[in-house]
Amino acid sequence: MAVKFANRMNLLKGSEIRALLALTAKPEVISFAGGMPAPELFPTEGVKEAACKVMDNMGRVALQYTGTDGFASLREKIVARMAAKNDIHVSIDDILITSGSQQGLDFSARVFLNPGDVVLVESPSYLGAINAFKACEPTFVEVPTDDAGMIPEELDKILATTENVKMIYVIPDFQNPTGKTWTLERRQKFMELINKYEIPVIEDNPYGELRFEGEFLPSLKSMDTKDLVIFLGTMSKIFAPGLRIGWVCSTNAEVLGKYNFIKQGADLQSSTIDQLITNQFLEDNDLDAHVEKIKAVYVKRRDAMLKTMEETFPKEVKFTHPEGGLFTWCVLPEYMDAKVIAPQCLEKNVAYVPGGSFFPNGGKENHFRLNYSCMPEDKIVEGITKIAEVLKANLK
Amino acid sequence: MAVKFANRMNLLKGSEIRALLALTAKPEVISFAGGMPAPELFPTEGVKEAACKVMDNMGRVALQYTGTDGFASLREKIVARMAAKNDIHVSIDDILITSGSQQGLDFSARVFLNPGDVVLVESPSYLGAINAFKACEPTFVEVPTDDAGMIPEELDKILATTENVKMIYVIPDFQNPTGKTWTLERRQKFMELINKYEIPVIEDNPYGELRFEGEFLPSLKSMDTKDLVIFLGTMSKIFAPGLRIGWVCSTNAEVLGKYNFIKQGADLQSSTIDQLITNQFLEDNDLDAHVEKIKAVYVKRRDAMLKTMEETFPKEVKFTHPEGGLFTWCVLPEYMDAKVIAPQCLEKNVAYVPGGSFFPNGGKENHFRLNYSCMPEDKIVEGITKIAEVLKANLK
Repeated sequence: MAVKFANRMNLLKGSEIRALLALTAKPEVISFAGGMPAPELFPTEGVKEAACKVMDNMGRVALQYTGTDGFASLREKIVARMAAKNDIHVSIDDILITSGSQQGLDFSARVFLNPGDVVLVESPSYLGAINAFKACEPTFVEVPTDDAGMIPEELDKILATTENVKMIYVIPDFQNPTGKTWTLERRQKFMELINKYEIPVIEDNPYGELRFEGEFLPSLKSMDTKDLVIFLGTMSKIFAPGLRIGWVCSTNAEVLGKYNFIKQGADLQSSTIDQLITNQFLEDNDLDAHVEKIKAVYVKRRDAMLKTMEETFPKEVKFTHPEGGLFTWCVLPEYMDAKVIAPQCLEKNVAYVPGGSFFPNGGKENHFRLNYSCMPEDKIVEGITKIAEVLKANLK
Repeated sequence: MAVKFANRMNLLKGSEIRALLALTAKPEVISFAGGMPAPELFPTEGVKEAACKVMDNMGRVALQYTGTDGFASLREKIVARMAAKNDIHVSIDDILITSGSQQGLDFSARVFLNPGDVVLVESPSYLGAINAFKACEPTFVEVPTDDAGMIPEELDKILATTENVKMIYVIPDFQNPTGKTWTLERRQKFMELINKYEIPVIEDNPYGELRFEGEFLPSLKSMDTKDLVIFLGTMSKIFAPGLRIGWVCSTNAEVLGKYNFIKQGADLQSSTIDQLITNQFLEDNDLDAHVEKIKAVYVKRRDAMLKTMEETFPKEVKFTHPEGGLFTWCVLPEYMDAKVIAPQCLEKNVAYVPGGSFFPNGGKENHFRLNYSCMPEDKIVEGITKIAEVLKANLK
């Protein structure tokens, strides 16, 4: 057929992770490739009770259309949680419910980016954000990032010399893919630069509550004096991703209004029943206690993974020591290619995600990401040991 | 703040309908403004049972991420339903689950439209589609449309003389906003032209199953021999819009693949739990019987509305006689402006949607849309009678 697609479609390909996940679906594969929460920890009984209650007490509301901005009671609870957990103090008018925070990423690109406009990202950054942004055909500039976060001097240099920077996308807490967390000093310096250049910041915080150790660090949004930070939150990692409940928080009414316009055209609203079930669950259950349960399991898995890596990985391979979240990130010697090694691991029924796609401008193939949230400890030890064998066989 | 938005944001404003709906939320207002299904007909008990069963039998699956294309069992049921109801015979690989068919509209624009590309629409067309398309900054060409549907000679002329026509958007069954249905002859002639010019067609069919009278007419997709028609379906009007379950059907794998890429970036997937509840409901309930119940109520409401309009509206005001769906469409004398009359009606606590926004290129203010699905018959008689009074007072 003589059909012509839009230019943006030339830039989009399926996520490598999603393609890989298809290969790793076999039960015999030990997969560190995904980024999924552990399903055995889902509060299935609580969700069932919440769903019953919602259908009994407000079934007609649950099945009907609702406002684009989202169910008010749920937004109230989100406001309260952001105050308690992130020291962010806003009103429900500053919140737009989205279908997961992935939708907040897509909307951010559509609100700010013309083709060719510049978006700054950490190097590396979240693959799902990069792919969402690509649909708006921007230019990516990767800001050099070390173990403490985005490097302020490098950011300053880029902002001083780059035209059409429309937004900066960052994940300061337990970043995907590296597991790194920005220090307090880096957060402060970052916000100084943001205030100087007045560039909108997309602060993506899916993992912030999953801190196993170390001190709480304030979100960028809590330090935002010029309404420049747009905070993306989600229930996916602390509750369940199968109900698609995320949110955009902006204290700039014009900005949030633009997100709302995009939401109207995109899907009118997020699922009413998902919003009501989540709201009911939060009313009847102690989410903090649930998050503690999740953390207790994940920290053991992280420990099993890091300990096995320390014991078995060749010393030439470096990796991060995340204080929370779902991921660690491995850096291979430059002559090694994680894309080449992945099939060798898959032959031994172990999977990871090669890191190249997390660099939007490419060219860095000596990295891979490991997820520890979704496998029991014995499988983690077994899988990491097998990866170590493959890595050793690839050393020069 | 010195924030610069993307160009597309200059074209987007909130939907007039959504703004109006806020005003009409007061219980004393008789609103014909929305396009909502009657909530008293929702199968709340069946949904509750389905939700319980899902959470009991596959709670962990329901709360976890799932594939972008959607839950396979649900796609199987959609395939079966399209075969039975639309004479469309496809496989589950031809289906992508979306968050309502609104998302299918948004994705269609993003798959096909560069800024300035031409999209053809019926004149008038669905406001939510126009707004979704606007985010891709196309040029709209309105194809003259009469009571039998899009006029083939006019379409032929436009296709022969217009460059960069990337897609044609149509609602052949009980159109929103006019309630009109294309004749069989018009469908055939339309498909002849489509085959000649090989332009992708977005066939939006949210209301097709809600036929009160007259003969079933084949969908364009069922007559599509060149894989050019992309069919959008939804559970919103025959089941419930609060679970956001729609779908895109394309028999061109490359085209559906592009929709899938956009979906990955947009929100990863539609709500897992909504998909599983819908699937379970379809397994345990007779949706055909439920649709019959809906139709039995809506046809009475339509009859009450049309009868009252015939009895009370001034003869200068014309309106359509829909054979199904949710809407009738009123045409005022050209000197009257439905936007000016709407506040006068609202003073009497009656609301409709002015028709101007349904014409993407504007300039036609002497129309308005009436929805009859959401009000009981006595309120319909009362509301229409009040509108008639206002209309008479505005006659010259």
